[in-house]
Amino acid sequence: MKDSEKNVPSVVVKRLPRYYRYLSELLNQGVKRISSNALSDKMNVTASQIRQDFNYFGGFGQQGYGYNVEYLHGAIGDILGLNDGDTMVIVGAGNLGKALASHDTFEKRGFKLVGIFDNNPDVIGTVINGKEVMDVSGLEDFIGRERVDIGVITVPHGAVEETVERLVKSGVKGLLNFSYMELKLGKDVAVENVHLSDPLMTLSYKIKENKQESKR
Amino acid sequence: MKDSEKNVPSVVVKRLPRYYRYLSELLNQGVKRISSNALSDKMNVTASQIRQDFNYFGGFGQQGYGYNVEYLHGAIGDILGLNDGDTMVIVGAGNLGKALASHDTFEKRGFKLVGIFDNNPDVIGTVINGKEVMDVSGLEDFIGRERVDIGVITVPHGAVEETVERLVKSGVKGLLNFSYMELKLGKDVAVENVHLSDPLMTLSYKIKENKQESKR
Repeated sequence: MKDSEKNVPSVVVKRLPRYYRYLSELLNQGVKRISSNALSDKMNVTASQIRQDFNYFGGFGQQGYGYNVEYLHGAIGDILGLNDGDTMVIVGAGNLGKALASHDTFEKRGFKLVGIFDNNPDVIGTVINGKEVMDVSGLEDFIGRERVDIGVITVPHGAVEETVERLVKSGVKGLLNFSYMELKLGKDVAVENVHLSDPLMTLSYKIKENKQESKR
Repeated sequence: MKDSEKNVPSVVVKRLPRYYRYLSELLNQGVKRISSNALSDKMNVTASQIRQDFNYFGGFGQQGYGYNVEYLHGAIGDILGLNDGDTMVIVGAGNLGKALASHDTFEKRGFKLVGIFDNNPDVIGTVINGKEVMDVSGLEDFIGRERVDIGVITVPHGAVEETVERLVKSGVKGLLNFSYMELKLGKDVAVENVHLSDPLMTLSYKIKENKQESKR
């Protein structure tokens, strides 16, 4: 890690996936260069904010001349670790687990789904997106053998704590947690808590704001 | 809207759902008061940042003495518009649509799911979480009649543009968009784009950071 990469504020880290997504789009469109102003327009972040964000990682481009899209895309992908080939398992093959197992963007971003687990005999053995659902009793063995990096948690509320414990003990390096619980773990295991109701609440705020503006 | 509510930065708006969730938890635990320091610990935001955030909405509490949990919870809920009883429809009853239709947190946050739509004859008429999936051909009529506030988009890629157009024409006030497309609409319709791969990318960053730290 470069010194400049240390202590990057979490708001900046959270913007990196957005930059990466947008640069992927530009790449697909065959765009070679983009100015920080054009990037700014698209991203709803000021151009100076973008330059500030990028400075945490050493800059990336020449001001005025703009950024090389392919280079910037690759560099941000590296920073995000998308070229590390992280593997993941999904625990909980309900509707959300199934939706995520079929979500083709994960693979496009460099993640490899290697297993789906459930404890329901009716679900074990069914096939989701070409993968057979395995019995969760074999979770630890599988993770140890395959050296799985990430556990995605989509089990019902009552099973969250046990699932977290088993995943952590088995040696996963990160958890993507879709349960209502806000997990906090030790330094060795990274966590991202996803709360599907958060964007709905933000949307509600924006709707309310629009209503009030139209009343003026 | 109070003058102080104008031009709230979007990072602050994005933190409001997290405050609200945490305060809901505290309420459930019977906690009456919380200091900004305790709130700060739990939220991974500095105490001064919390005070700054709350100042956009006129403050809420006395420094040193802490915040009244019930009052703060209610006030933030009001700001988020959670007491407006917003109604919503889900368009696309695939795995993700089903998962969201069964997501009990939406209702807990004050949103009311009034309809689920699909275009697949095998899916129309099936029941999800007590609601019968309706034929999407009746979408406009239903939204007009029921004055639906929010459209949740969980259709396959190819159907996104048409779905957005139909929802907007029917008069919804906001879209919760789970498609890969980053939607931008006119001022009248609010949008939240949800990209399920973003938290996975952020997790990947954290995993990489942990690895590099343990190598030092």
